[in-house]
Amino acid sequence: MTGRYEAMWERLNLDLDAHASLLEVLGKFYGDIYMSQQGRLRGMEYLDFVLSEIHGLRIQELQEARANGRKVIGTFCVFVPEEIVWAADAIQVGLCAGAEAGTEAAEKILPRNTCALIKSFVGFKLARLCPFIESCDMVVGETTCDGKKKAYEIFSDYAPVYVMEIPQMKCAADRALWKAEVLRFKQAVEDLTGRSITAERLREAVVLINQRRRALQRLNRLRAAHPVPISGRDVLLINQVSFYDDPKRFTQKIEELCDELEDKVRRGEGVADGAVRLMLSGCPMAIPNWKLPYIIESSGAVVVGEESCIGSRNTRDLVDESASNLDELLDAIVDRYMKIDCACFTPNAERLEHIVDMARELNVKGVIHYGLSFCQPYAMESFKVEKALQEAGFPMVAIETDYSMEDVEQLKTRVEAFVEMVR
Amino acid sequence: MTGRYEAMWERLNLDLDAHASLLEVLGKFYGDIYMSQQGRLRGMEYLDFVLSEIHGLRIQELQEARANGRKVIGTFCVFVPEEIVWAADAIQVGLCAGAEAGTEAAEKILPRNTCALIKSFVGFKLARLCPFIESCDMVVGETTCDGKKKAYEIFSDYAPVYVMEIPQMKCAADRALWKAEVLRFKQAVEDLTGRSITAERLREAVVLINQRRRALQRLNRLRAAHPVPISGRDVLLINQVSFYDDPKRFTQKIEELCDELEDKVRRGEGVADGAVRLMLSGCPMAIPNWKLPYIIESSGAVVVGEESCIGSRNTRDLVDESASNLDELLDAIVDRYMKIDCACFTPNAERLEHIVDMARELNVKGVIHYGLSFCQPYAMESFKVEKALQEAGFPMVAIETDYSMEDVEQLKTRVEAFVEMVR
Ligand code: SF4
Ligand code: SF4
Ligand code: SF4
Ligand code: SF4
Repeated sequence: MTGRYEAMWERLNLDLDAHASLLEVLGKFYGDIYMSQQGRLRGMEYLDFVLSEIHGLRIQELQEARANGRKVIGTFCVFVPEEIVWAADAIQVGLCAGAEAGTEAAEKILPRNTCALIKSFVGFKLARLCPFIESCDMVVGETTCDGKKKAYEIFSDYAPVYVMEIPQMKCAADRALWKAEVLRFKQAVEDLTGRSITAERLREAVVLINQRRRALQRLNRLRAAHPVPISGRDVLLINQVSFYDDPKRFTQKIEELCDELEDKVRRGEGVADGAVRLMLSGCPMAIPNWKLPYIIESSGAVVVGEESCIGSRNTRDLVDESASNLDELLDAIVDRYMKIDCACFTPNAERLEHIVDMARELNVKGVIHYGLSFCQPYAMESFKVEKALQEAGFPMVAIETDYSMEDVEQLKTRVEAFVEMVR
Repeated sequence: MTGRYEAMWERLNLDLDAHASLLEVLGKFYGDIYMSQQGRLRGMEYLDFVLSEIHGLRIQELQEARANGRKVIGTFCVFVPEEIVWAADAIQVGLCAGAEAGTEAAEKILPRNTCALIKSFVGFKLARLCPFIESCDMVVGETTCDGKKKAYEIFSDYAPVYVMEIPQMKCAADRALWKAEVLRFKQAVEDLTGRSITAERLREAVVLINQRRRALQRLNRLRAAHPVPISGRDVLLINQVSFYDDPKRFTQKIEELCDELEDKVRRGEGVADGAVRLMLSGCPMAIPNWKLPYIIESSGAVVVGEESCIGSRNTRDLVDESASNLDELLDAIVDRYMKIDCACFTPNAERLEHIVDMARELNVKGVIHYGLSFCQPYAMESFKVEKALQEAGFPMVAIETDYSMEDVEQLKTRVEAFVEMVR
């Protein structure tokens, strides 16, 4: 795709040489991990296409939209109420990054003991590798974890950062604070776009995003089948792409894919015959962070569920569509987002219940808890997760890693041992 | 002191052997670092005494108070509004710990990548080494950093934990949340003690704690003198003891010490002639964490200020005493605590101003930023601190360490190089 989009990337001030190398590595990595799968689903062709065009066609769409006066808003966390962005006719894209490129640059302005996700998005910006962030009119940070909270202060020297405060408990005062934050965000989006958010537009946006959530819920339900009809890698990719792609188009494509999967389930066909069913739980896996799922699925196991923000945490809850006016719609949004069971909350008992429920529904043999190194919220919470799973009869192993490839062999050994143990 | 208090420690279920070793190590460490100083101030005799009796007489006082129906409340952070505790005739003690004992036990229930302060208080509890925590009727945690926030969830299996939510910004919604939290805490303390907090009692408590703050402010002002009349180690110890000691007695002793210091200043006498004036800034140094100040003061420098919670952050602001009723007093408390410039806030520009102001007032040659390993808020913020200090003409070095003694030589080399550079 390099030739076709080079002028656009140049206008976006990317480092063209470094960017070309990045795309080459990404393409090869994708080929090894995705294209090598046998009996690929027809519906995955769309995802292959989207991914091959991730810095091309999608960026061109964003640029065209901007030329027509629409704004692009980048986010790093599923707490940012997407409905408000779409209701103002702006476009939301996920910015959190899953590749190591740019780490060296990031470590000049951030401590080395910072989680890979943070170093990655800062590094992508500093090394001028990410056309998404260069397309953003506003970048929304949040106070979820110490790392991100403080990194945005530094990052705001380089990008137009707006920060939302996320409460840390779920009491009445927290709900009030969160509502104030949602209203402040609505105002900021209205100011940026010059459009005021009406009840009608907001309801449309609520339905738009709910539909995408419903499609992903349907996809996840189909994975309860034996044998499982789709690989974990493929579903991870779908979840990752959901943060970048046009929601309407994406939803339709996923519904089509689900039709295909339903047929497959009916015929009793699956991927990875005899593979051990496992679930992933923990930190998000931003694109192109496919390392651990690939290791797992090359070790005699198949991932049938992801309890993470690039997974079921982002699709579990819908916004109530029955609200009759703007205020009620906003309240419904506030309530929906307050249900998110991120480890940044204390206590966060809901998450333990959700994990155990998922493990039962998906009929898994065990759970792999995934933590990014230096992510304290998830590392600490993994002790509670392990206890809850143990009590429910599910073995768990906690794996901590980053984006480097240095520990692949070591991880493979640990994953294989776990798979053998739970088989 | 072992013989005299052994029965008490046994009743508190301490591990007597391990505790005896701890006290022995502590005594030796104290001797090396404190008693070796020349021309010791008369006023420090009280501190030497308090420290020698830290697990003895003070614990006996707490036990006697409890026998008389008073409650003891332990805290880990300067956000817990002490005035409310004292107004209910309860006793507040600081629990955050500065020694490595118990780390092994702590690492069984917490990630290794956790800051030493957290591992220490958890470890002290698990290893049954801390008579303070065993004397507590309530232990107050807070949501300041990810590490503590999530550690309290685990710690609450072992101690009677109550958690306060600390806001992360300083907008109107944050002040409202904090006020709700202060009121919830007041209720919890009233429930625990069976006493209701009246305006009169609260005002007395406000004055009591303000007086302690005023005495420590006076002490800090005296350190602007050339030569400086007291070592940084001694002031650190005073700050540390302020978290444990009876506030009234303590204040009086510090005022006496200040009288002595004023005489000294008048006579132009100081400690450490020709030593380079440095300031510490960053994470708290809980008792007996004297490692870095000792290294600094053995390297041709003297510490003349501590910008930390065991230092000026805890004493800078007073509660307005002019309030005329309970509501106004509570508002004054809410406002005073909202001024704390902990790195857990975003943004936290006040802290940068405070640091530069302190550096100027104390006429320092440079600043040593102290971070506990894995403390993300302070590690991230140190980049901004360095920039602000640089612009104001003060060199800074960032040192990250924990409670182990393994890196002492390495730290000494770095500190000596910094002292030479700024001399
Ligand atoms: S894990 Fe928490 S902080 Fe990260 S994206 Fe999810 S909700 Fe946001
Ligand atoms: S993975 Fe953890 S440390 Fe990293 S951004 Fe998410 S919550 Fe923060
Ligand atoms: S540094 Fe922050 S979290 Fe720590 S004691 Fe101070 S205010 Fe509390
Ligand atoms: S030093 Fe840092 S990580 Fe440790 S308890 Fe304090 S704020 Fe938290």
